[in-house]
Amino acid sequence: MELKTYLKAQAKAVDAAMKGYLPKASQHPRTIHEAMHYVVFAGGKRLRPILCLAANEACGGKQEDAMPAACALELMHTYSLVHDDLPAMDDDDLRRGRPTCHKVYGEGMAVLCGDALLTESFVLLSKIKAAKRYSAADFVHELALTGSSRKLIGGQVLDLEGEKTQLTKRGLIRIHEAKTAALLMSSLRLGAMSSNATQSQLEALSLFGYKLGLAFQVIDDILDVTQSTEKLGKTAGKDAVVEKSTYPAVIGLDASRKEATKLTRQAMQALAPFGKKRSERLREIAAYLLERDY
Amino acid sequence: MELKTYLKAQAKAVDAAMKGYLPKASQHPRTIHEAMHYVVFAGGKRLRPILCLAANEACGGKQEDAMPAACALELMHTYSLVHDDLPAMDDDDLRRGRPTCHKVYGEGMAVLCGDALLTESFVLLSKIKAAKRYSAADFVHELALTGSSRKLIGGQVLDLEGEKTQLTKRGLIRIHEAKTAALLMSSLRLGAMSSNATQSQLEALSLFGYKLGLAFQVIDDILDVTQSTEKLGKTAGKDAVVEKSTYPAVIGLDASRKEATKLTRQAMQALAPFGKKRSERLREIAAYLLERDY
Repeated sequence: MELKTYLKAQAKAVDAAMKGYLPKASQHPRTIHEAMHYVVFAGGKRLRPILCLAANEACGGKQEDAMPAACALELMHTYSLVHDDLPAMDDDDLRRGRPTCHKVYGEGMAVLCGDALLTESFVLLSKIKAAKRYSAADFVHELALTGSSRKLIGGQVLDLEGEKTQLTKRGLIRIHEAKTAALLMSSLRLGAMSSNATQSQLEALSLFGYKLGLAFQVIDDILDVTQSTEKLGKTAGKDAVVEKSTYPAVIGLDASRKEATKLTRQAMQALAPFGKKRSERLREIAAYLLERDY
Repeated sequence: MELKTYLKAQAKAVDAAMKGYLPKASQHPRTIHEAMHYVVFAGGKRLRPILCLAANEACGGKQEDAMPAACALELMHTYSLVHDDLPAMDDDDLRRGRPTCHKVYGEGMAVLCGDALLTESFVLLSKIKAAKRYSAADFVHELALTGSSRKLIGGQVLDLEGEKTQLTKRGLIRIHEAKTAALLMSSLRLGAMSSNATQSQLEALSLFGYKLGLAFQVIDDILDVTQSTEKLGKTAGKDAVVEKSTYPAVIGLDASRKEATKLTRQAMQALAPFGKKRSERLREIAAYLLERDY
């Protein structure tokens, strides 16, 4: 299957699964469930779930075994966007080409909506079947630690505190590791765990996810400079306005592009233990992310 | 052991366990971990953990097996207070006798602090050992569902939407079930599950927790009317100011006191299957909560 067809089909499968897992938009109390559907079904690319499913596939697992974790990852990602967009944080009006949650439902409801999505990610995770090598507790520990104050939330804290501060490249990498790479790495890890991956498979996919996550954030920083708001679906040029340290700001646009290419190559190299055929899809995805319009 | 001594000793044990489980206040990034410690170690009564431990004891379990769940319950409770106090929600300046989280650390950090505590509750839960009758997934499912948009968060939504609306007694009970009774019920259930309780023990403790939770909220509503801010450690008379429907407002103060007494009696009756000796501590706690100064 051609990559673009595959990505579309997988995103559709993830959306269908999420529709089945989530409470209906009409469920009582209605406002919060409507808000949850509004932000979840806004046409996201479903990158994290797709990586989770692809990791499961690379290890020879069954897609259905990875689906609860795949959807849990997307809910955690979406909650972090809803809260990051709040006026008290990044204060953004636009996300995935639509008004942000608090613009439509108000700030209080947006806080609760994010809370509900975060909580729901663990409702989903509790549906996962333990694999031989990995208990249900291992899955929960993986996602919870990644979402915690040491990783995802810690990254947002550093990001907030880093505004108007001139960061070094090392400081920037530290934020990117926590804010972006950790959840991408967990996407690969949870997919691998759901297929009962061996320790060496898990380690290879972790490294792939880590490097891919760093590359992804460098590319995101570049796109913020070079693309239009319309194309991004979120406010472009935002980083410069709030004087946020980004890759292009710290090392320049050309060096940033080179860095993204290097990280992507390193990510692909991490897949060597899988051989060419088994790792093909993951390599295709990595190449595709690097070639996003910028 | 006398009840007051027991409550103090248990609260101390819970605090010590939480200190061990949580990242240190000095851990990087420092602000978020300081904020987490500020709100968690503010002298709460630790009611939910104590109920969890007492349920474990009533079923003949070992306290150490219930401790991760007990602390997870307190973290979930604390996160809900931090977010409920935000300006976009109940907008409160005082909690447990101290300035609220957003007053000290700012709104953005308070949102992230609540997020981190919620996430941490699942980090803790992943440490629990599965009991014969209950898998790790059962524990996660219990807490996540209770914290979800159908229960805890749903209750806060109804509460927000119920302000300036005249609710019926039934409407009020629906909010109290979701906002308060659900988490108290889960406290009992998680404690029972950690001791590998039988189905009938679990059911008895669920009913006890449900009735106790309803009683607790009625008493809370009464205290908001009758007590001083200093004594409550949070702003008194708040419900009337925002025209929130409460028990005293809907059925009057005297009828509310009778209702609390009736619910407490029903809670105690639910414990019959345990016999007098095994249920003594839980009955003592129920009686104590009813007799809080009001």
